[in-house]
Amino acid sequence: MPMNKQLILASRPSGEASVDNFALRQQETPALQDGQVLVRHHYMSLDPYMRGRMNDAKSYAVPQPLNEVMVGGTVGEVVESRHAKFSVGDSVVGMGGWQEYSVVDGDAPGMLRKVDTTHVPLSHYLGAVGMPGVTAWYGLTQIIAPKAGETVTVSAASGAVGSAYGALAKARGCRVVGIAGGPEKCAYVVNELGFDACIDYKEHSDYLSLSKALRQACPDGIDGHFENVGGMVLDAVLLRTNAFARIAVCGMIAGYDGQPLPMVNPSLILINRIKVEGFIVSEHMELWPQALAELGALVGSGKLRPRETVAQGLESAPEAFLGLLKGKNFGKQLVKLI
Amino acid sequence: MPMNKQLILASRPSGEASVDNFALRQQETPALQDGQVLVRHHYMSLDPYMRGRMNDAKSYAVPQPLNEVMVGGTVGEVVESRHAKFSVGDSVVGMGGWQEYSVVDGDAPGMLRKVDTTHVPLSHYLGAVGMPGVTAWYGLTQIIAPKAGETVTVSAASGAVGSAYGALAKARGCRVVGIAGGPEKCAYVVNELGFDACIDYKEHSDYLSLSKALRQACPDGIDGHFENVGGMVLDAVLLRTNAFARIAVCGMIAGYDGQPLPMVNPSLILINRIKVEGFIVSEHMELWPQALAELGALVGSGKLRPRETVAQGLESAPEAFLGLLKGKNFGKQLVKLI
Repeated sequence: MPMNKQLILASRPSGEASVDNFALRQQETPALQDGQVLVRHHYMSLDPYMRGRMNDAKSYAVPQPLNEVMVGGTVGEVVESRHAKFSVGDSVVGMGGWQEYSVVDGDAPGMLRKVDTTHVPLSHYLGAVGMPGVTAWYGLTQIIAPKAGETVTVSAASGAVGSAYGALAKARGCRVVGIAGGPEKCAYVVNELGFDACIDYKEHSDYLSLSKALRQACPDGIDGHFENVGGMVLDAVLLRTNAFARIAVCGMIAGYDGQPLPMVNPSLILINRIKVEGFIVSEHMELWPQALAELGALVGSGKLRPRETVAQGLESAPEAFLGLLKGKNFGKQLVKLI
Repeated sequence: MPMNKQLILASRPSGEASVDNFALRQQETPALQDGQVLVRHHYMSLDPYMRGRMNDAKSYAVPQPLNEVMVGGTVGEVVESRHAKFSVGDSVVGMGGWQEYSVVDGDAPGMLRKVDTTHVPLSHYLGAVGMPGVTAWYGLTQIIAPKAGETVTVSAASGAVGSAYGALAKARGCRVVGIAGGPEKCAYVVNELGFDACIDYKEHSDYLSLSKALRQACPDGIDGHFENVGGMVLDAVLLRTNAFARIAVCGMIAGYDGQPLPMVNPSLILINRIKVEGFIVSEHMELWPQALAELGALVGSGKLRPRETVAQGLESAPEAFLGLLKGKNFGKQLVKLI
């Protein structure tokens, strides 16, 4: 049995998360039972939602239990199988968690899926052709539902969700404007991801200033917005919305540490007859095949070239995760385990 | 030509509105041209939205022009007609404004409509079987769309919109909980309007306290909410929402005077996957006939017995309007002009 390194949640953060909230442990993988598959993880995914799970608070998902392996998406290869549908060498995507190996029940719905790496690199199944890509697809197509010619915006534009959002919106004939942190990310959003414009929120000290920049970048106003961050960005966007704008709320990263994060002017929801809707992509599994097909085609044709930031080795995960929460990554944050 | 008394907007409020913002004037009604109708107003309607129009700010409607007759709904009788569709003595509902008479183009769509007073008193066409009733109907059926057994709430529950909302929600098998100001209004909401419970927001100094009262009144959580007020009430309701709750935003009365009215915890929109949607009922005229038919039947059958507060004479309108903004009225606020 191979030795398996794991990262567990050792304590819950009070305020900002730190590396001390995680602990490394090591144990042999258990012998397989009938119907089980042993997967060796090549990459694991780091995502903002994990910060929410670290809290012991009411949310859309149960909290990450203490002293158990941190939850998370993984891609890898089957190294041992006692299930007829999976063979040694198969490339698979699943929810293996922060560890080098996982034992998966091959029959559990949605837990393990074979993927084709002919046109799409394996790691992209954790990003553009995985949960983040489907997240962008759901918010754009099911909540914002833009018409060609409309202007749509997205915060955290250079990230895994934002980059997929840009390609999906351009494919629908929209003007797409990103909001990101720093000139390097903004240049990437425009030059490599093909956004029409990108605003560096770090140049603005308050939402009114950011809102003025949005007015320049969105001369026809904002018809749809995808919110990954909350706070100042959302306040600034609300001021620039057109009548009947739609806002898909996917993330409130700035509020995860527990500080209050009010919406300054909710009366704009009435004044502009806005729809603001929160969603969790895992609650809409029936739409994933359709979304993944479109995202795979965009990657295969080169219209979506997602960037990745890759940390090396399981031990690097906590620091890489904390960096992600501070926007230090560039594109999809992964940890390479082989 | 009859002499016509009118109230005009003489100045815009800075902060709280006052009687000095209005001025009385008097002029003869003009001679009718072909296609026009002269209406003598029996009642005029006072509504919270009028406060928004008094500001010179971007909103869903153009501001009320200075030195012109205040906008508003009216019911009355045709006293002279040069239009084939209208005869002297017809009961009509329209947007005659704050004056005793109006001259209306009989062909202008939606400006003048004949109504039947056999089963529904004329004044109710300004309330339960008029714009406020349709407002409640739209928010409940088109945005909240409750299932039988769900719990729905409404602020300003004893008002024209709230009372219609309660009857419409009970007809759909919902648990309906109101929020209103003072024990007298709360008793009326439960005993006469048939709500399951009503909370007196004046007993609570902050949204956390109000939220605790909501938890008792809504033991299964809140599935839908109709917001007429904003501020503390909306913050308290958000804390008690169930997953996939729907919030129809119809009014933000507490913010009309320009003071900031933030939403304390917008991250609940994500955590509970809530849809928050603002709307203006006049943008959905195609649904009015369906809504008015249901509301007329509820009033005709006695299932909706709306209360009215009636001020006497045009001169009483400014003070009655300012009282409405402070919640001094009880049910639909009208001004009787004959």
